Amino acid sequence: MAINYPNGKQFLIKTKIGKNDNSKPIKKVNYSNRGMSLEDFLNETNIYYMEHRIALIHKKPTPIQVVKVDYPQRSAAVIKEAYYKLASTTDYNGVFKGKYIDFEAKETNQQSFPLKNMHEHQIKHMKQVVEHGGIAFALIYFTSFEEIYLIPADRMIVFWERMISGGRKSVTRTEFAANGSLIKLGFLPRIDYLKEINHMFFEG
Amino acid sequence: MAINYPNGKQFLIKTKIGKNDNSKPIKKVNYSNRGMSLEDFLNETNIYYMEHRIALIHKKPTPIQVVKVDYPQRSAAVIKEAYYKLASTTDYNGVFKGKYIDFEAKETNQQSFPLKNMHEHQIKHMKQVVEHGGIAFALIYFTSFEEIYLIPADRMIVFWERMISGGRKSVTRTEFAANGSLIKLGFLPRIDYLKEINHMFFEG
Repeated sequence: MAINYPNGKQFLIKTKIGKNDNSKPIKKVNYSNRGMSLEDFLNETNIYYMEHRIALIHKKPTPIQVVKVDYPQRSAAVIKEAYYKLASTTDYNGVFKGKYIDFEAKETNQQSFPLKNMHEHQIKHMKQVVEHGGIAFALIYFTSFEEIYLIPADRMIVFWERMISGGRKSVTRTEFAANGSLIKLGFLPRIDYLKEINHMFFEG
Repeated sequence: MAINYPNGKQFLIKTKIGKNDNSKPIKKVNYSNRGMSLEDFLNETNIYYMEHRIALIHKKPTPIQVVKVDYPQRSAAVIKEAYYKLASTTDYNGVFKGKYIDFEAKETNQQSFPLKNMHEHQIKHMKQVVEHGGIAFALIYFTSFEEIYLIPADRMIVFWERMISGGRKSVTRTEFAANGSLIKLGFLPRIDYLKEINHMFFEG
């Protein structure tokens, strides 16, 4: 069995049956990143951080407005009518070295990141986090390039305000690279964003 | 108009029509606490903290497992079948003076607090928060007494472990008073738990 360690693309586990047979790999376990969403990567990463006692970061549940619930006898309540609500904060938060950590994660298959994928209240929330001494940022995943950028809140706010005042409605990868950090997809953890946060806010 | 400021019970706004009429209050705006849940009080409190730039604390949405969704044309997605899930963390978190804040809020109409109202994973979560340098605690509201106790995580964990090792399954108000702080219901903010947190963790 040969494991080709990840290079941001994919790797295979090849299992040979024996030495003398003209064997081909009989099992192809595909650990490709294809089909995995940013949320999947971040869930894995946050579990890694928790198990290795690096940090405690959780994704908030999706807010849902429940309208109608049935309570069948002897079984769990069944929600029969409900609607998705717009989140009033960012998706992820938690604690790292005592500090409050807060971020939003977005993915796009486009060449540049459309700012309409963020919401104004999320930008406002990031501003507030920074005001209270927390660490806020965005993670933007360009799926076609397998590139993830970590953008500190203050820079994300600048891009947002440029749009508000009539400027570009999107942010290019080059702009993100100049105003944030490229994080390569890894194996364990998948997206080591806290390494970058540690570097930016704790080592300075 | 006379406003009787709150004493933990109720107060009225009485509006007189004129001086010479034999008037009775024509409007009784009832600001009684009756019917208000701990969650209502905390929502008001957290809005107060946000608007006065004291802290940024949010309640996490209730986690719901969505099973079936309809997408009617030209209107919002309707969730047709879903179930409540057990939360994997505590209900409230946020940032205060840069620090990570995390707490669980519970109410009981009993004389002492039944520990079965907490879940083991919530206790575990509190332990982890403390390990990472965050501030974790529980707010326990005794509705019949209109008393709220703030109990730091380490004390809550002691009560929990006493139960696990075969001891009492509940915690009395006297025990909470000796191991935490009584917070009186107020007006603005309703439950000033951060005043106590500031005292415990920032003034020391």
